[in-house]
Amino acid sequence: MNRFLAHTGARYPIVQAPMGWIARSQLASAVCEAGGLGVIETSSGETENCQAEILKMKTLTSAPFGVNLPIMFLKNDAILQFICESGVKFVTTSAGSPAKFIAPLKAAGIVVYHAVPTVDAALKCVEAGIDGLVVEGAEGGGFKNPEEVSTLVLLQAIRRVTDVPLVAAGGICDGKGMAAAFALGAEAVQMGTRFVSCAESPVHHNYKQAILDAKETGTYVLNKKASPCIRALKTERTAAIYEAGIMPPDTFKGILDLYFGGDMEAAVGLAGQTSGLIDEIKSARDIIEETVAEFHAIAGRMGAIAAAQNFG
Amino acid sequence: MNRFLAHTGARYPIVQAPMGWIARSQLASAVCEAGGLGVIETSSGETENCQAEILKMKTLTSAPFGVNLPIMFLKNDAILQFICESGVKFVTTSAGSPAKFIAPLKAAGIVVYHAVPTVDAALKCVEAGIDGLVVEGAEGGGFKNPEEVSTLVLLQAIRRVTDVPLVAAGGICDGKGMAAAFALGAEAVQMGTRFVSCAESPVHHNYKQAILDAKETGTYVLNKKASPCIRALKTERTAAIYEAGIMPPDTFKGILDLYFGGDMEAAVGLAGQTSGLIDEIKSARDIIEETVAEFHAIAGRMGAIAAAQNFG
Repeated sequence: MNRFLAHTGARYPIVQAPMGWIARSQLASAVCEAGGLGVIETSSGETENCQAEILKMKTLTSAPFGVNLPIMFLKNDAILQFICESGVKFVTTSAGSPAKFIAPLKAAGIVVYHAVPTVDAALKCVEAGIDGLVVEGAEGGGFKNPEEVSTLVLLQAIRRVTDVPLVAAGGICDGKGMAAAFALGAEAVQMGTRFVSCAESPVHHNYKQAILDAKETGTYVLNKKASPCIRALKTERTAAIYEAGIMPPDTFKGILDLYFGGDMEAAVGLAGQTSGLIDEIKSARDIIEETVAEFHAIAGRMGAIAAAQNFG
Repeated sequence: MNRFLAHTGARYPIVQAPMGWIARSQLASAVCEAGGLGVIETSSGETENCQAEILKMKTLTSAPFGVNLPIMFLKNDAILQFICESGVKFVTTSAGSPAKFIAPLKAAGIVVYHAVPTVDAALKCVEAGIDGLVVEGAEGGGFKNPEEVSTLVLLQAIRRVTDVPLVAAGGICDGKGMAAAFALGAEAVQMGTRFVSCAESPVHHNYKQAILDAKETGTYVLNKKASPCIRALKTERTAAIYEAGIMPPDTFKGILDLYFGGDMEAAVGLAGQTSGLIDEIKSARDIIEETVAEFHAIAGRMGAIAAAQNFG
């Protein structure tokens, strides 16, 4: 039995990443209705709005969903308490140590996965009693560890040191990536950029189009020697930040103008390397169903190779 | 039929990368004798030594082997002419445009694959009539494209635009990586760091031990804004280069003291992220046989998932 499915109750082991402001009920419910696991963000810091979105999810879908708690960004325990009392059964924590959050969440009957970019971080979480890990390879978009390790290597490195279920994140947008992740020991995949650019994503068309237009080399890792380190689409603004090597403190000030106003130079458009693989806006349902079908087709092709003991 | 095997005559679709000074007959013949494809380097620029190594290969193994031609590093056509007359049947070109090399090599009955780090480079090679591509993901060691794209993403991006056979390179050191690469459309894998640190590798034990000791975060990408951009093991010297952001021109001056004298601070020890996955010196035969067995075991597990139409 796939442990991620047992932990979450989702039909398919496909998680929608918790992008700030974007991972709200419109997107997450579409993912859930298609059999994936939608996740509501709280990294925007808009506590009341996020609480309302969590409540709204229950009116939009009867399928299970998750909530993300980005530990460093939490101003107080309000959202933690709300989640513990909300009936939510699955939480991903990220951005900081989950140690003190695991006990209250588990006491509320919630399964907790933490997002990790290194083996050391994974080991600390396992020691703290985490139920599973989201393994965040360097190719993913958004907030990153400046020590870049690819999904291909990181999944294997973490799989060696722990037996907890792993969700592969970074570089995955379809059934090919899902098959590769499962070959490396993952039991689920998480997609961010693919869902930012899906039909039900609430962002402006310009942001979706910028993802569709990007090549596989279409992102920068910025601010590697400071914090936060991020991966974002190439624009005039991000090119200047890349050249300078340091990100001005007001970089995110215009993020809502970019996300929802469509001004791609107003801030930085977070996205992963999969921008180079995504060339069509699709519904969450099509993304999930095509991913599952392609995953099984590739798994079948691999099975034929094993049966023949050849190499295809 | 696996086209890489048809092209090369090797028993297994596992290529040993052409590391300068290291990929000589001692290592390459061990790989060939174990059923992989050993490749002799010429990037050291030691034309006469490399020619002697190519001749020596024929006394050490009756299995097919390849030669690498790093185009930018070639001082003249001497090595090209030598290869065309040598009876070698497989050449990988790299570091520059292969366009003017493809015709003479093919006229000599040689199959030519070129190493590419981007879709644009792949398309140019295909247009020039290349037989196959070595797809070089950012996690690999050595000389790199400063625009980093992971093997997971790059393989898919290149697979979409061409049907020529692909060799996956970067981040692969065992059957798990090989299974992931095949799921993504590769027909062979290339390993560098794994063979640098194998028993038959001619490098000093300190270099092998540094690879064994490294974590998955144990390498830097250096000199991203100049040339050459490289991935190398973390040492005091590489930490200083990383901080400075630029690599002094004499960085490779002591490379033989590092490779063969074991002074890890004499130059930069090229290695990939798989350094974090490698923790034992093994023979080339053990590496290849274990990789093939693990590849088939994982392919079988994937086949069972396909048969059950579940997720493991």
